Amino acid sequence: MGEFDLIARYFTRPTTKAVLGVGDDCALLQPAPGTQLAISCDMLVEGRHFFPDVDPFTLGHKALAVNLSDLAACGATPLAFTLALALPRADEAWLAPFSRGLLALADAHGCELVGGDTTQGPLNICITVFGEVPVVKGRSQALLRSGARAGDDVYVSGTLGDARLALEALRGTLALPADVLAEARQRLEQPTPRVALGQALRGVASAAIDVSDGLLGDLQHVLTASGVGATIDTSIAINLIAACTRPDCAAGLISLKNRLGYVLAGGDDYELAFTAPASAREAVQAAARQAHTPVTRIGRTEAEAGLRLTDGQGNALPRSFASFDHFA
Amino acid sequence: MGEFDLIARYFTRPTTKAVLGVGDDCALLQPAPGTQLAISCDMLVEGRHFFPDVDPFTLGHKALAVNLSDLAACGATPLAFTLALALPRADEAWLAPFSRGLLALADAHGCELVGGDTTQGPLNICITVFGEVPVVKGRSQALLRSGARAGDDVYVSGTLGDARLALEALRGTLALPADVLAEARQRLEQPTPRVALGQALRGVASAAIDVSDGLLGDLQHVLTASGVGATIDTSIAINLIAACTRPDCAAGLISLKNRLGYVLAGGDDYELAFTAPASAREAVQAAARQAHTPVTRIGRTEAEAGLRLTDGQGNALPRSFASFDHFA
Repeated sequence: MGEFDLIARYFTRPTTKAVLGVGDDCALLQPAPGTQLAISCDMLVEGRHFFPDVDPFTLGHKALAVNLSDLAACGATPLAFTLALALPRADEAWLAPFSRGLLALADAHGCELVGGDTTQGPLNICITVFGEVPVVKGRSQALLRSGARAGDDVYVSGTLGDARLALEALRGTLALPADVLAEARQRLEQPTPRVALGQALRGVASAAIDVSDGLLGDLQHVLTASGVGATIDTSIAINLIAACTRPDCAAGLISLKNRLGYVLAGGDDYELAFTAPASAREAVQAAARQAHTPVTRIGRTEAEAGLRLTDGQGNALPRSFASFDHFA
Repeated sequence: MGEFDLIARYFTRPTTKAVLGVGDDCALLQPAPGTQLAISCDMLVEGRHFFPDVDPFTLGHKALAVNLSDLAACGATPLAFTLALALPRADEAWLAPFSRGLLALADAHGCELVGGDTTQGPLNICITVFGEVPVVKGRSQALLRSGARAGDDVYVSGTLGDARLALEALRGTLALPADVLAEARQRLEQPTPRVALGQALRGVASAAIDVSDGLLGDLQHVLTASGVGATIDTSIAINLIAACTRPDCAAGLISLKNRLGYVLAGGDDYELAFTAPASAREAVQAAARQAHTPVTRIGRTEAEAGLRLTDGQGNALPRSFASFDHFA
């Protein structure tokens, strides 16, 4: 199978939103009048972002999910994406499930594949995704990292830490019951981008980011961009790891310290961390209901720079969890 | 140096066209009212698209140039791009010249770096580029592959085959005088995207493509998309290779057959191949002058499908030049 057959068979489909899709030198998009185009780009490398033997269907899902998660953090409505793919060989047994997983998630979000590139090389998946953000009365509705104000509440969507738990089990550093691993592995391999929540939070949240490298590190980006600090209540946060709230999963399997580490600095969660003024608490819960996505208030921003942890009684805890850095 | 330092030091600059550049979950673009956004994406892999010891400055140039060439083929005005980079390690001696080469070409075309991703992995450079195409009276001015009509002239810009000549010399399959190699190597490593020509051809050319995999293969994409065939006069085409028209380069160094092969199927040229009605000959030459880019009329499209070669007397020649296919 040649390069052009491969593209035609697995990656060429009619477009409805884009003016022109796969098959010319460029794709053409015509954003609706009065909107901004949100753009994000993520590259996934074998051995770094996924195991060589990962199911190609879930890999296709994840490659797009991590990009949609960036659109979600911005409050954008997905429109389209490009896919660049370096493959060791044109292997149909890999390409068929990969493209199915990719395009199933794309269809679920109305996000059209409009172009890309394929080449021979070590497995590498690079997706650039495009979304639309309304501009209302000259004001962009995009959620930015820089909008938090001192005194805002800090929230996180869904659950945190299960992806890291699965990663540790797959690496063999801990053992999990099969059904616990299966559920956690689903979070690692097929994360749910919080696209509906991001859109529902437009005009409600003051700042947002998606949690990809770990909550503390990613939240720090929001605090730095906004010029504020925050305190997080770990007695609330520690319950965000779904595996440890299952009745069949004895919490004793995982030490409390590790459990908190997975929640605060696990990575690969693809939840939204966001801030909103205390006056917006009802609006935040309404957005969560509208998006069918639970959100948990875990702390508060403050004028004092830095990110502090407390126990349930308000006592300070040491901060010893690093975020993920690709070159550290 | 960590991931975020690396991005801050080499790839973060203020934007003037984009609403928001590097540093948030998404970049934000606001295309001018009444325009379409042209999008293209190319991935360059070490050992496949460039030698491991290539000068990082020229590699930065080329990585963006091949993308700008796609915008040129579409007639788009460059706006912005994203860069995803997998690097074996954060090597400042490589990153500094790479970013200089990349951003020098970006500045020359007013194309802003607005976002991207960096990760550890085998060297891989993936750029997605965005350009603007006007819509006039409801009609997109984008140049497409599908617009050629039987009887149109076939043109190519600049020179063809020198990049392949340099590649062969660097591979050691032929020897070239040092100054000939230096000039050809410039074409291989720092191709000139024909951005101004593409824009000048809006409303003049009937179809266009950029020549990246070799003239015959790429022109065939235009013919297929347009439902026509073409005949190319090889007695004109053979003179398109600059190295062989130098007085100090004895044509005898390269066989006539190889020379024609480099021109017709060499690859890595990043010139524009385009069609235009015979009635537009003066307009084509005016566009070429306006863009300071020579163009050569090399043939004609015909109703009969297929791509035929003739000598200067109109006699048919055998067609034995393949185009480049990454998985063939």
